[in-house]
Amino acid sequence: MHLSASEISNPLIMKSSLFYAFRSLFLAVVVSGFSLLHAEGSEPAPLVIQRQGSFMVAGSVVTAPGVFDPIKHGAYSPAAQETAGQTLHGDHAYVFYQMPVGAHSLPLVMWHGHGQSAKTWETTPDGREGFQTLFLRRGYSVYLVDQPRRGRAARSTLGMNIPEAPDEQLWFGIFRLGVWPDLYAGSQFPQDEASLEQFFRQMVPNTGPFNLEVNASAATALFDRIGEGILVTHSQSGGMGWRAVIKNRSVKAVVSFEPGSNFPFPAGELPAPVPHANGQASGIPVSLDEFIALTRIPILIYYGDSIPDKPCTNPGQDLWRANLELARKWRDTVNRHGGDVTLVHLPEVGIRGNTHFPMSDLNNTEVAGHMAAFLEKKGLSK
Amino acid sequence: MHLSASEISNPLIMKSSLFYAFRSLFLAVVVSGFSLLHAEGSEPAPLVIQRQGSFMVAGSVVTAPGVFDPIKHGAYSPAAQETAGQTLHGDHAYVFYQMPVGAHSLPLVMWHGHGQSAKTWETTPDGREGFQTLFLRRGYSVYLVDQPRRGRAARSTLGMNIPEAPDEQLWFGIFRLGVWPDLYAGSQFPQDEASLEQFFRQMVPNTGPFNLEVNASAATALFDRIGEGILVTHSQSGGMGWRAVIKNRSVKAVVSFEPGSNFPFPAGELPAPVPHANGQASGIPVSLDEFIALTRIPILIYYGDSIPDKPCTNPGQDLWRANLELARKWRDTVNRHGGDVTLVHLPEVGIRGNTHFPMSDLNNTEVAGHMAAFLEKKGLSK
Repeated sequence: MHLSASEISNPLIMKSSLFYAFRSLFLAVVVSGFSLLHAEGSEPAPLVIQRQGSFMVAGSVVTAPGVFDPIKHGAYSPAAQETAGQTLHGDHAYVFYQMPVGAHSLPLVMWHGHGQSAKTWETTPDGREGFQTLFLRRGYSVYLVDQPRRGRAARSTLGMNIPEAPDEQLWFGIFRLGVWPDLYAGSQFPQDEASLEQFFRQMVPNTGPFNLEVNASAATALFDRIGEGILVTHSQSGGMGWRAVIKNRSVKAVVSFEPGSNFPFPAGELPAPVPHANGQASGIPVSLDEFIALTRIPILIYYGDSIPDKPCTNPGQDLWRANLELARKWRDTVNRHGGDVTLVHLPEVGIRGNTHFPMSDLNNTEVAGHMAAFLEKKGLSK
Repeated sequence: MHLSASEISNPLIMKSSLFYAFRSLFLAVVVSGFSLLHAEGSEPAPLVIQRQGSFMVAGSVVTAPGVFDPIKHGAYSPAAQETAGQTLHGDHAYVFYQMPVGAHSLPLVMWHGHGQSAKTWETTPDGREGFQTLFLRRGYSVYLVDQPRRGRAARSTLGMNIPEAPDEQLWFGIFRLGVWPDLYAGSQFPQDEASLEQFFRQMVPNTGPFNLEVNASAATALFDRIGEGILVTHSQSGGMGWRAVIKNRSVKAVVSFEPGSNFPFPAGELPAPVPHANGQASGIPVSLDEFIALTRIPILIYYGDSIPDKPCTNPGQDLWRANLELARKWRDTVNRHGGDVTLVHLPEVGIRGNTHFPMSDLNNTEVAGHMAAFLEKKGLSK
């Protein structure tokens, strides 16, 4: 219990705090015991959280020229606000964390992809537990990031026009739910309209220009603040995650769900770009010194289903054929340099029907179990 | 434990799930017991959460004219994306909730103010627990809202230009931290630079035009979904909260921190606007039928410190003098009609130094205790 001096001196509140503490104890015992007897029951066991909270990390500041006068300039004027001498803090990341009681020493830092926020890792579109809660249950502290210029980290030091631009059918295709308006046969995306609506609504626009270095710096600053941990990336944050590994030794492992291209290769070993229906998947050249950082830690990469073996005309699918081909070349290159990259194409291990969002698909507990087994095998779950 | 069939059939994972369940039980008992013995200890007791998650609620959809062709239009083109036949879901609210084990029947729905997100209610700028966690500890389920066109509910059906406009010194004044660059003497805002930086960084821009009805509709839809609850508003959401009470009988009480003007009065009883250094505080006329809704539930309004008694030239202060004067008139009007409005000007009950953000000021546990005592007294904490 967290009591201020004034509360402790108030007998009524003190009594009620003790009551809550007793009740928590009683319920924790009863419900935990219940869960042992009913492991397959419909009501999941309670989460026992030692600490939770949120903070902003990294970012920059701009200051407008002039001098701010609190009396002359202190009136709110939406149409013509005086900026003289005022500051704008922006380009930071927002982070929400939860630490279960008796957490493993390495937390998971989960970083969303393009057009998304930390919502990616929370409740699934059809209302089941996402990776945030599933991994708390497995004893991991979980940090969820809204990257700079997105979501709750929306303040940007550069302005932005957000157009009113309907684009959801595009993302339906690129996120490999199916070929609009049909889901792929056997898709692990829920069939009902309400889930698709929730999925569309979890998209968020950039609130400032996209900047890889700003984002990678925020990730680096987060690891500087929290210490060693495991970075979990998705799609666009995949490429930024490799950058974070190069910049920060506190990243002790990476699990990357469907990283896009932008795999860093040693300058002399850059493979030819892989063409696809809408362009090409290309690596990016880095120095051998930088590259070596990626050989020092275990890396696990997942790709889902509905990725064709051969070129096809559907841009939403063909993009991922090229990215997967490049990812395999990258795995081989890192491992040739003594690295430890595992690439799991889920259908090859019998996990079928996954979209670009395996962390929220219908079989996400199975995917979480697969990932957890990997972390355990690599000694990352102590 | 939440186990898929494939996990249950895997002896290794099953064993480790049982291990976690046993460990949770053991730790819950040990740590809860510890908290009974050390109620004033520095490490707060764990939170025991029955369920947590997030969802989107309300919103609208626009569809661009034409027909979407997944092959022809399915390629991502940031510069010139084809919108034909595509949809845009926007104007919803984002909601994150946590339900403690054995929760009171009425949850708290916390709604941020102007330029803010649900971060308002989370960790304070100096890293202490905010109202989200403080009220979970008091046995309340807590729902945190990002209102439409803000934060994680950023998708808007109307476009928006977000300017790069330094304005933090303005808000330093309006949020009554002090007269820039000085905090008010005895302020409950932390003195250190890092806290002020966190506070500035928690601001977020609108990502679409501000629309009171869109926001009030989202709040109403949330209560339709979750049932009866207590609405907790702050500043700009104060006015929208009165609207939500009028629209939805599931709002069983309101706690409003520093509501702005926009108090709804019966058309014939609208008081004269209260002039201040930057305009005037005005009520808004509603029908008597609508107004009566506000007399049916307990309402608690808080205002903090540093609000002058008499007109002054500092716009950041004088605005609140006018709002407080109007709030008193509104309290009297509602109560004259048989209502139950309590207005607490915190310095008058000996709680001094509060800014516009009593939920995150240094004395926020004291403010939470005051609010909790009110809810208990009104029979709202069962």
